[in-house]
Amino acid sequence: MTLLFCSSSDNADEWRRQISSRIPDLEMRVWPDVGDPADIEMAMVWKPPAGMLATLPNLRLIVSLGAGVEPLLEDPTLPDVPLVRMVSDGLAVDMAGYVAFQVLRWHRLMDEYGALQAEGRWEPMDHRSASDVTVGFLGLGEMAMAAIRTLRTMDYRLMGWSRSPKAIDGVECFSGADGLAAMLKHCRMLVCLLPLTAETRGIMDAALFAALPQGAVVVNAARGGHLVEEDLLAALDSGHLRGASLDVFATEPLPEGHPLWRHPQVRITPHVAAVTHPSRSAVQVAEAIEAHRAGRPLANLVDRRRGY
Amino acid sequence: MTLLFCSSSDNADEWRRQISSRIPDLEMRVWPDVGDPADIEMAMVWKPPAGMLATLPNLRLIVSLGAGVEPLLEDPTLPDVPLVRMVSDGLAVDMAGYVAFQVLRWHRLMDEYGALQAEGRWEPMDHRSASDVTVGFLGLGEMAMAAIRTLRTMDYRLMGWSRSPKAIDGVECFSGADGLAAMLKHCRMLVCLLPLTAETRGIMDAALFAALPQGAVVVNAARGGHLVEEDLLAALDSGHLRGASLDVFATEPLPEGHPLWRHPQVRITPHVAAVTHPSRSAVQVAEAIEAHRAGRPLANLVDRRRGY
Repeated sequence: MTLLFCSSSDNADEWRRQISSRIPDLEMRVWPDVGDPADIEMAMVWKPPAGMLATLPNLRLIVSLGAGVEPLLEDPTLPDVPLVRMVSDGLAVDMAGYVAFQVLRWHRLMDEYGALQAEGRWEPMDHRSASDVTVGFLGLGEMAMAAIRTLRTMDYRLMGWSRSPKAIDGVECFSGADGLAAMLKHCRMLVCLLPLTAETRGIMDAALFAALPQGAVVVNAARGGHLVEEDLLAALDSGHLRGASLDVFATEPLPEGHPLWRHPQVRITPHVAAVTHPSRSAVQVAEAIEAHRAGRPLANLVDRRRGY
Repeated sequence: MTLLFCSSSDNADEWRRQISSRIPDLEMRVWPDVGDPADIEMAMVWKPPAGMLATLPNLRLIVSLGAGVEPLLEDPTLPDVPLVRMVSDGLAVDMAGYVAFQVLRWHRLMDEYGALQAEGRWEPMDHRSASDVTVGFLGLGEMAMAAIRTLRTMDYRLMGWSRSPKAIDGVECFSGADGLAAMLKHCRMLVCLLPLTAETRGIMDAALFAALPQGAVVVNAARGGHLVEEDLLAALDSGHLRGASLDVFATEPLPEGHPLWRHPQVRITPHVAAVTHPSRSAVQVAEAIEAHRAGRPLANLVDRRRGY
């Protein structure tokens, strides 16, 4: 059984060690050294070149190294075989940490205290009770649920919006276009963790920002395509939004000289909110491979019509 | 029934509003306008002048506006009446947020990303899995338990040390002098949330820092008296410790020109990790007053021999 590994941003040797320790009889080849394409039964990929997977005549399973699969679904030649995505606990826990950090940074005035320290000034400031701070989530998948579990321990008021109606303990849930507007007006913090689909592309635009209360903060840890960056800059410069924490961008790496880099109300991280580490995720990949071999149902199978 | 309010760092008017809405027949006087000292049956205080409470002949209850009561217990003239301290949910939840923020800031390299943003540089860095990061707590009271509940949702490896042995789900517990050394060698982050007593004063000194692994981070959100500041500076300057987040100091406000202000590995906040807000804590004060009037047992009664 042969697996093809194709990713320019993951460490193939580390993945080989982790997977082979679990499935010793697996042969792993690393793109572009494919050998005979007919040998390849499974592919483990992150942003493979468009059309590449279609050159593998005996491909039976694709494993996405990321939780977001839209780079794959955008390829019209993508073979019609089961596609599984990474939603390991490690990823979700990383995301919970990123979201908690960003919410606390803005709510607890931590950057303001950093600036005061630089001036040697001792100035305690009042902050709202967490129970008076509404954090709204766009998207209620595994990533949002992990962040919700963490924020709930700190008494934040939680709301969430999703495509289909949901019921989540301790979270006021909304869905549909009317639901979105109803939620936004309460959100002092808005956290985007949606999948990127035709319906969600550009969802964070001028109209959405206008529906948020004065002084709201936006956090995007989903995909750059969810955010209209010019609209965000305008909403920050007008004083309507207080700030934004961004981990993802329309173009990555964020280009040199892009106005987001130097904006005083923007906090940038280079797509590190939730990172697939071989040591944490190899278990999930190995389980997918073994379920495939044994003909068992696959976990985290992507529904291509929904896009996640 | 008359209550005396005495604090230079709390808002008496706001407390009056909050308490009188719950106990309309309570008269509240604000020090130094005591009136006839014999009228005063209860005192609500934060760092009152030494000897002041001893001038109240009919005092029957003292409510401390902070969770730490060592400023009161240091006064040898403190009347021998029940002493209750603030341990409201709001305080503990504030503390959980402060601790989570500081742990995430160091673990997830957030300040490093801030510095990279200032230079317009996109450089993703690896970070350990949270499950490989041991956070050790000095003290396992209400504040530590709240922080533990939050960190647990993010898979940190948790340890804790307390005076008397404890058993806490998901936390490796230590006690006694031998237990302290056994715990410290594992801790990449050490969070102090101890009460300040004769035994814990100066506990974070050169010997404790030497027992931590190379590259450890120290967080102090308890009292300045727990930390030997010169020893911390030496351990940072030698490169043994990676950093420190400090909310409390031997002298507060931290004096102008103190070397901690400008140390590049020190993050300072002005004693705001957990703040008693009237709107959140008035319920607890009102309950203490009513329990006292009705002769019911008092919650959060201080054991003066233990010091908390």
